[in-house]
Amino acid sequence: MSNEKYVIGVDYGTLSGRALLVRVSDGFEIASSVHEYRHAVLEDTLPINGKKLPPDWALQVPSDYVDVLKVTIPEVLKSSGIDPTDVIGITTDFTACTVLPVTETGTPLCELKEFQDNPHAYVKLWKHHSAQPHADRINELAHARKEKWIARYGGKISSEWEFAKALQLLEESPEIYSAMRYWIEAADWIIWQLCGKYVRNICTAGYKGIFQDGKYPSSDYLKALNPNFAHFVSEKLEHTIGELGEKAGTLTKEASQWTGLPEGIAVAVGNVDAHVTSAAANAVNPGQMVAIMGTSTCHVMVSDRLAEVPGMCGVVPGGIVSGKLGYEAGQSGVGDIFGWFAHNFVPQEYVDNSQKLGKDIHTYLSDLAIQQPVGGHGLVALDWQSGNRSTLVDHQLSGLILGLTLSTRPEEVYRAIVESTAFGARKIVETFNISGVPVTEFIAAGGLIKNKFVMQIYADVLNMPITIIRSAQGPALGSAIHAAVAAGAYKDVVAASAVMGGVEQFKFTPNPENAKVYDQLYRHYNSLYEEFGHNKVMHDLRRIRDTALMGAQ
Amino acid sequence: MSNEKYVIGVDYGTLSGRALLVRVSDGFEIASSVHEYRHAVLEDTLPINGKKLPPDWALQVPSDYVDVLKVTIPEVLKSSGIDPTDVIGITTDFTACTVLPVTETGTPLCELKEFQDNPHAYVKLWKHHSAQPHADRINELAHARKEKWIARYGGKISSEWEFAKALQLLEESPEIYSAMRYWIEAADWIIWQLCGKYVRNICTAGYKGIFQDGKYPSSDYLKALNPNFAHFVSEKLEHTIGELGEKAGTLTKEASQWTGLPEGIAVAVGNVDAHVTSAAANAVNPGQMVAIMGTSTCHVMVSDRLAEVPGMCGVVPGGIVSGKLGYEAGQSGVGDIFGWFAHNFVPQEYVDNSQKLGKDIHTYLSDLAIQQPVGGHGLVALDWQSGNRSTLVDHQLSGLILGLTLSTRPEEVYRAIVESTAFGARKIVETFNISGVPVTEFIAAGGLIKNKFVMQIYADVLNMPITIIRSAQGPALGSAIHAAVAAGAYKDVVAASAVMGGVEQFKFTPNPENAKVYDQLYRHYNSLYEEFGHNKVMHDLRRIRDTALMGAQ
Repeated sequence: MSNEKYVIGVDYGTLSGRALLVRVSDGFEIASSVHEYRHAVLEDTLPINGKKLPPDWALQVPSDYVDVLKVTIPEVLKSSGIDPTDVIGITTDFTACTVLPVTETGTPLCELKEFQDNPHAYVKLWKHHSAQPHADRINELAHARKEKWIARYGGKISSEWEFAKALQLLEESPEIYSAMRYWIEAADWIIWQLCGKYVRNICTAGYKGIFQDGKYPSSDYLKALNPNFAHFVSEKLEHTIGELGEKAGTLTKEASQWTGLPEGIAVAVGNVDAHVTSAAANAVNPGQMVAIMGTSTCHVMVSDRLAEVPGMCGVVPGGIVSGKLGYEAGQSGVGDIFGWFAHNFVPQEYVDNSQKLGKDIHTYLSDLAIQQPVGGHGLVALDWQSGNRSTLVDHQLSGLILGLTLSTRPEEVYRAIVESTAFGARKIVETFNISGVPVTEFIAAGGLIKNKFVMQIYADVLNMPITIIRSAQGPALGSAIHAAVAAGAYKDVVAASAVMGGVEQFKFTPNPENAKVYDQLYRHYNSLYEEFGHNKVMHDLRRIRDTALMGAQ
Repeated sequence: MSNEKYVIGVDYGTLSGRALLVRVSDGFEIASSVHEYRHAVLEDTLPINGKKLPPDWALQVPSDYVDVLKVTIPEVLKSSGIDPTDVIGITTDFTACTVLPVTETGTPLCELKEFQDNPHAYVKLWKHHSAQPHADRINELAHARKEKWIARYGGKISSEWEFAKALQLLEESPEIYSAMRYWIEAADWIIWQLCGKYVRNICTAGYKGIFQDGKYPSSDYLKALNPNFAHFVSEKLEHTIGELGEKAGTLTKEASQWTGLPEGIAVAVGNVDAHVTSAAANAVNPGQMVAIMGTSTCHVMVSDRLAEVPGMCGVVPGGIVSGKLGYEAGQSGVGDIFGWFAHNFVPQEYVDNSQKLGKDIHTYLSDLAIQQPVGGHGLVALDWQSGNRSTLVDHQLSGLILGLTLSTRPEEVYRAIVESTAFGARKIVETFNISGVPVTEFIAAGGLIKNKFVMQIYADVLNMPITIIRSAQGPALGSAIHAAVAAGAYKDVVAASAVMGGVEQFKFTPNPENAKVYDQLYRHYNSLYEEFGHNKVMHDLRRIRDTALMGAQ
């Protein structure tokens, strides 16, 4: 008979959900299971009636989230062979802002017969991008009225967030807007399904819901956006706030039947995938920046100091760890820029050679590029192919490559692109440093940590050691840690992270010679950054492009 | 019995020579024949002893040039079936500055046993680029001493030209320098072989030999460069100057035996390939700019006015047409930038598809690109992958691409690159316009005229009709025209060109809608041009590159 106890963290990604069964005493990962959403992402049509969706829409089906619980949790219980009664807590983390309209009792409107044909009744996924005009109005009005909260978001509210998507809902589908009782984050809705109680987690409320210092934007402000939006906060949004690591409730009988877990165990407040990774890396102290590096990069860091960091995505008290200020910043394109280049701009000969050597194309390009000394390509690039989230908060910006000659080879451009994203990370770090919330440690998580070439470039460019998260399932482990705290196994997330989370012994250490050359290249990056970040050339090129393409329709 | 008379033009290119037999009465091209140089370009080793050549060297073997006469002229006589006695004149045009050391009697030093092992005894081809340090000293000293002639060359003497290559010869191989009687252009050496007389053509003397207003750089100036260089002009360089279209002499008995042409026919003064193309296009009047568009582009235009056009390669009285001022400008990279992109940055899928459709990759990319409206790619590029000849005269510059997004496709970058070279041409045209020597007509010659996609973009970007030279062998026809003048068939080159040269009826006409959008894109190109042409970012990147690569050796 073992005395070991266990917790489960469920990580809800864009295309699938993953359950991770973790030992409470040391964070050891016992078993995991993944389930892909049956409806994936709805971007073209609504399955029920084949109705065409407008461009830039991205919806999901909430029952897919419940299916993840029904499939993956029994599976980890079975494959681990543990006694389910030894599981003492569960929680989840989610993409954000992923948001849906529900009734008083939490039923998604898309599950009601009268609304199932209406795309607005479904979950709007984080990457649903058609509320940009609404976001633009939100920002213009906030600046015009000098609303204080806008500074906490680096000066811009995103089209991805709760208010922009809600305003779109109101104006495009007043009947759904009117019928919904709550405009709820999926992060909180899934917790409601587990414990039968709606608790609004502070993280999404703060970062995505403009909840600052106990307040939302005023009714006056909302009325000026649209008279019918005046009472959005009081009628649709506000609700009990839960701190991260708190217990939201206990597992219901129904959820117990879905999962095979004991009824009544602790269900912690919901989390966001990026932010919860800090706990998994045990990087929950001021100065420890965690970069979740994948197709894009999200940077999260806690601090004791409130500062306005230009271009950050937000600063939220308790937004990462309860009792501390949580900062978030981001780079809108990282791995997807590498992928774009490798897919579109690498010749046949390279693909053939990489296949002969049994390497994927990224490894092949990296192995070629690394043979050249730093700066040997003579290139510098701006990493804005997908816009710039931090520090410029400008998605009209675009990429630039400079220094091309007739002898420039694909692996050189590839390397310059990788370096440009490292320079982008350095710009963010330096912006935090000069804003009074210095970064003293850089911890990498996410898919790109497997890429040694990328990691070493980041270490050399930042001239800081890069520590690597130990877990390959950072978000799910982070959730599990929060579940352990909610279950009372640890006094708080900091204590639990110290035992259950952590980083690899191995670090990527900067090479001082490389760092010196990168300092020179970074100066050029930074000059180009300041110049093209503000001179509107890229905006005008985009305007010309959009005018041309519209005219051609 | 026909009364028709004929002339022969021989065009000496980088890898081969071409003879063209032309009817004097109307310029009709009767027959042509090409012969490749046996030794091509010596860039790695000297064949006689396998001696390794330093980087950036490019040599040729003069006997290869004579072989062209021996092979191609009998061939055109034979294939045309004409009576050789109906041929009344011959001349040649050459790459420039292609230059060699010879004895008093014109024997190349490389043909002397004592020197055949010394690379400096051979022909230095135009693209022999290792005299850059010598060119740098020439330019610095000229500016320091405020030498007036430097302004006639846009402020810079090229490393390709006579003085830089001679200074290199003096300093690296004083024994060859001392043994040579003449430092002679291949353009003039080959005429010497035909007529037994050395006449220095005004075109190379002016553009490549710093011969201005009847004078060369002073002995004082040369002495300051190197005391042993003080008498370079008087001892090695200066010689009787011949105007273009003048008779240099008559065909020798020996040359008659090589070629099968009648002894004693007119041999015209030598020419340069680009400049002589003006005659072939019948574009010999002020305002008619001829662009010889290939891997690079050379722009030539005559004028009645002496002006200092910033960044031109030179202005030479009689340098294109006798009695008029000849202007030359250039773009150091054009077709070779397209080739570089197509070779290095186009994925397998594109190559496969182009092959399926039976198109070469350039056509395939063009056909895809043309489907998009002008400006639809949102890109702008600087065409400096091979540096900038005009108007910046700076080979340390490099290429730039701006406006990239994750949806940017290879055909869009390809198009932006083609457009960047058209913007470069527009910059040259506008620089001539504002310098008081306006361009009123744009005539295209060279390999790129076959590319309709490129030509239409140039018409739209320049917002000028593009006229196309009629002959596919522009330089050889231009030489033939000069031979006809030297033979007395026409009173001058202008008269001969009017009959024997010409352009196609068809023109590429600008599309006004496209031109409007290109005006907007050009404004951005021009801003980037002015900025990166002067801010030294590209210079510094190159310095970083060169330092890195040297350190790695």
